[in-house]
Amino acid sequence: MSEKPLVLITGANGFTGRHACKHFADQGMKVVPVFRDHSSMSSRHYGIVCDLTNESAVTELIVTVQPNYVLHLAGRNAVKESWEEPMNYIKTNVVGTLHLIEGIRKGAPHCRTLVVGSALQYNPAADDSPPHPYSLSKTLQVMISKAWEELLNIDLMIAKPTNLIGPGRSNGICSIIGRKIVDIENAKCSPVIDVNNLQAERDFLDVRDAVEAYRLLLLHGGTGGSYEIGSGVSRSMQETLERYKQCSTKDFAITENKPGKIEKPIKLNLSKIKQLAWTPKIPFSTSLNDILNFYKHLYHPERKNK
Amino acid sequence: MSEKPLVLITGANGFTGRHACKHFADQGMKVVPVFRDHSSMSSRHYGIVCDLTNESAVTELIVTVQPNYVLHLAGRNAVKESWEEPMNYIKTNVVGTLHLIEGIRKGAPHCRTLVVGSALQYNPAADDSPPHPYSLSKTLQVMISKAWEELLNIDLMIAKPTNLIGPGRSNGICSIIGRKIVDIENAKCSPVIDVNNLQAERDFLDVRDAVEAYRLLLLHGGTGGSYEIGSGVSRSMQETLERYKQCSTKDFAITENKPGKIEKPIKLNLSKIKQLAWTPKIPFSTSLNDILNFYKHLYHPERKNK
Repeated sequence: MSEKPLVLITGANGFTGRHACKHFADQGMKVVPVFRDHSSMSSRHYGIVCDLTNESAVTELIVTVQPNYVLHLAGRNAVKESWEEPMNYIKTNVVGTLHLIEGIRKGAPHCRTLVVGSALQYNPAADDSPPHPYSLSKTLQVMISKAWEELLNIDLMIAKPTNLIGPGRSNGICSIIGRKIVDIENAKCSPVIDVNNLQAERDFLDVRDAVEAYRLLLLHGGTGGSYEIGSGVSRSMQETLERYKQCSTKDFAITENKPGKIEKPIKLNLSKIKQLAWTPKIPFSTSLNDILNFYKHLYHPERKNK
Repeated sequence: MSEKPLVLITGANGFTGRHACKHFADQGMKVVPVFRDHSSMSSRHYGIVCDLTNESAVTELIVTVQPNYVLHLAGRNAVKESWEEPMNYIKTNVVGTLHLIEGIRKGAPHCRTLVVGSALQYNPAADDSPPHPYSLSKTLQVMISKAWEELLNIDLMIAKPTNLIGPGRSNGICSIIGRKIVDIENAKCSPVIDVNNLQAERDFLDVRDAVEAYRLLLLHGGTGGSYEIGSGVSRSMQETLERYKQCSTKDFAITENKPGKIEKPIKLNLSKIKQLAWTPKIPFSTSLNDILNFYKHLYHPERKNK
């Protein structure tokens, strides 16, 4: 390929999507961002509007763009909302993915596709139940994607990222806390941060490390592979808040809502992604600082240029 | 309920659907058959046309009919065809079911629903892969149905029937052989029957026993239950053909295409359905005779009234 390889990125306006578009372009790829609707594209200068739940629109998208790679990030990802609109979660995350991979199979069969699942999938083995409709939707998304690879021979891999953090709008816990801290610094609310459980542990990974893993996977991953992606470090909410305190200009109190109940940390197997010479590079404190700076600039955009 | 309970039966023009409509009506229920399109309803006098892949049509169906029970039989079920149209299999079997159960949840929440899955489901545990898109579609259909019951509290059960046999058009192996035998009797083809493997075993159950199990499940089954339904008897192709020979007026030769490869019989757990005082009643030889008679009358309809 003498020309730049072309990568189609769905969910281009999302938290990960924005970082992926920038990173892939920085790394010399031709990026075609895909937005669900015109409002999600409004602040961007270039891209294609395509609602993945519209089958014929997706077919046209693939046939027209003829991507070398597809990074499929689009989808709904709010657990609470998934209880209110379970069918829309299945339609967007499962049927949308189905349209995409079937469009690729028929319209661009040589394309490599990375479907980004979630560490919140459940294990459908035995009589295990999904904890919420979002988890169901991500589990079915991955099952259909894997089946299309195994049965119908499309060139597809699955990434299962852990909790991604970093600058940008996100509904993740680190973003919620970061935004609150900036509110506290601006005296917009009382200096108290509520969390469910201080001992609850999570594996946090900077989104910029994650998009580099996605890039390596598209270039060098094994067809049909399923890759867990995380930092490999479990951090408690206690530690996260202590780290945030070191970055913040104001102190805050911490209250714990559900001190008894401890969430089990999800154990990740990072050996497969590490075989692609990938390793997380951004320190946890940098991620947290960048989250705070993001929200500071959101409130005071003039600071950005100082 | 002083009035007759109303049962909506989807897939009413299918092999099982036709028997279910008759049996449920014979047993004193008010049956509303649902047909996918006008052509599948053409030979019937009463029913509703509703394509389950059309979300708003399904919503209207449920809200208008307000069924007490739904027996969901509709779907595509040809393995070979599922390789050619994998997306249509997912859309019909998975998305169609999703529209139905979401319509019930929103429009008739007190309705009891029986979703009829398949013994051809695969186990998505570990890295097991579906053998074909049809299997994938039935597995996902059952996962979504169970999740809607567990997470969203609809009153739903799953039936997993084995190979159903009996009079009527079916793409099952007993029907294929029965039709061929009638062709042999009518000298329409050479007196040879090809099978893959004579030692391959299957659990055959008469469709009329199955629909009685479905009726008992709707009336007395446990919400959220998953019920395997079969005869509990494994029969080899050899035995099946010997039994057919006893019913046939002409002898035939048997050829075996894949003698080496033996299919593992699926082990059924019938204890749950037997707790509802259900037991198969129709002898195997009666099923086979009725299949032959069905095809004889199809060729010579005047015999039916003799």
